Amino acid sequence: MDERQRARRPGGRSARVCAQVHQAVTELISEHGYGNFTVGDVAARAGVADSSIYRRWGSLEALLTDVALTRLNTRSPMPDTGSLAGDLRTYAANVAREITGPDGPAVLHLAVALSGNGQQGRQAGDDLRAERMRQLQSMLDRARERGEHAPDAFGVLDHILAPMYIRVLFGMGPLTPDYIDGLVDRLL
Amino acid sequence: MDERQRARRPGGRSARVCAQVHQAVTELISEHGYGNFTVGDVAARAGVADSSIYRRWGSLEALLTDVALTRLNTRSPMPDTGSLAGDLRTYAANVAREITGPDGPAVLHLAVALSGNGQQGRQAGDDLRAERMRQLQSMLDRARERGEHAPDAFGVLDHILAPMYIRVLFGMGPLTPDYIDGLVDRLL
Repeated sequence: MDERQRARRPGGRSARVCAQVHQAVTELISEHGYGNFTVGDVAARAGVADSSIYRRWGSLEALLTDVALTRLNTRSPMPDTGSLAGDLRTYAANVAREITGPDGPAVLHLAVALSGNGQQGRQAGDDLRAERMRQLQSMLDRARERGEHAPDAFGVLDHILAPMYIRVLFGMGPLTPDYIDGLVDRLL
Repeated sequence: MDERQRARRPGGRSARVCAQVHQAVTELISEHGYGNFTVGDVAARAGVADSSIYRRWGSLEALLTDVALTRLNTRSPMPDTGSLAGDLRTYAANVAREITGPDGPAVLHLAVALSGNGQQGRQAGDDLRAERMRQLQSMLDRARERGEHAPDAFGVLDHILAPMYIRVLFGMGPLTPDYIDGLVDRLL
């Protein structure tokens, strides 16, 4: 956790405001979809001033990224099963469940939208990916420390995550357990 | 070429209208971006009636797909170099050049947008992918007929196209020749 993230979650009143704002964003996303509401809408729903949101997050894009990352970390935490194959199979299955769930593609569309959305959007998208890649690399480093031969995080992105992401983004049907395990086995 | 496609390009006056409408769509995309214009805008620019466009294409989504496919087939035709490795390297390099060009990500964003855009959009997106996958499969079948051991079209999608698409959609920097050739070599 870097300085900026620590400063965002100091506990007490600040933590309550943060939780209210996250809740407001989650509700607005499910009602209107990503990108169809403003900082003013979030502030009104959360019962805080617009300025509080800008002070803490800096931009709507950074706030959306923070919410997406919190959601990913809660719902798809990095597994620690004791073996690389077990970790990757569990991780891939979690990601597949998340991106094919009821509001699953939303976080993918957010990542795509951020990249095409000016400097603040690109920065927010970069932060989101960098944090998830860092977590993934930790999981792979643990495998290396156990003496297993592990790919790097970009190998996992290219050959496990990217195929699943593209099939969901292009609406190409379900991600079956056989398909997901096949991606993992092929990479290993 | 199936019945419907044959009916769309009968030559003569019809072919001229088709060319004018394609040209109008290309101009509107470069001026406003995919999704930010209507059938009426296309008709006005092309100097034809709205009803001509609906009669020939059925929907804006189907028209956009036809334009995207024509563009892909013109600019990234399937290569025939005499070897599978040569074909895949050339094909991957062409796709990379296309999706990282000045208006390159547009066709990717179109494919993503179509999938999230109701029944007509999904059908148009399915048609676009089915046609490109059919062309890709022909290239792979030629390799098999020469006695080479070829992956199927879905293998190429998952392990060559998807990684490049995701890196472009997420704004993750250039696709270098080494990176692209590495994807091909790994699949083979």
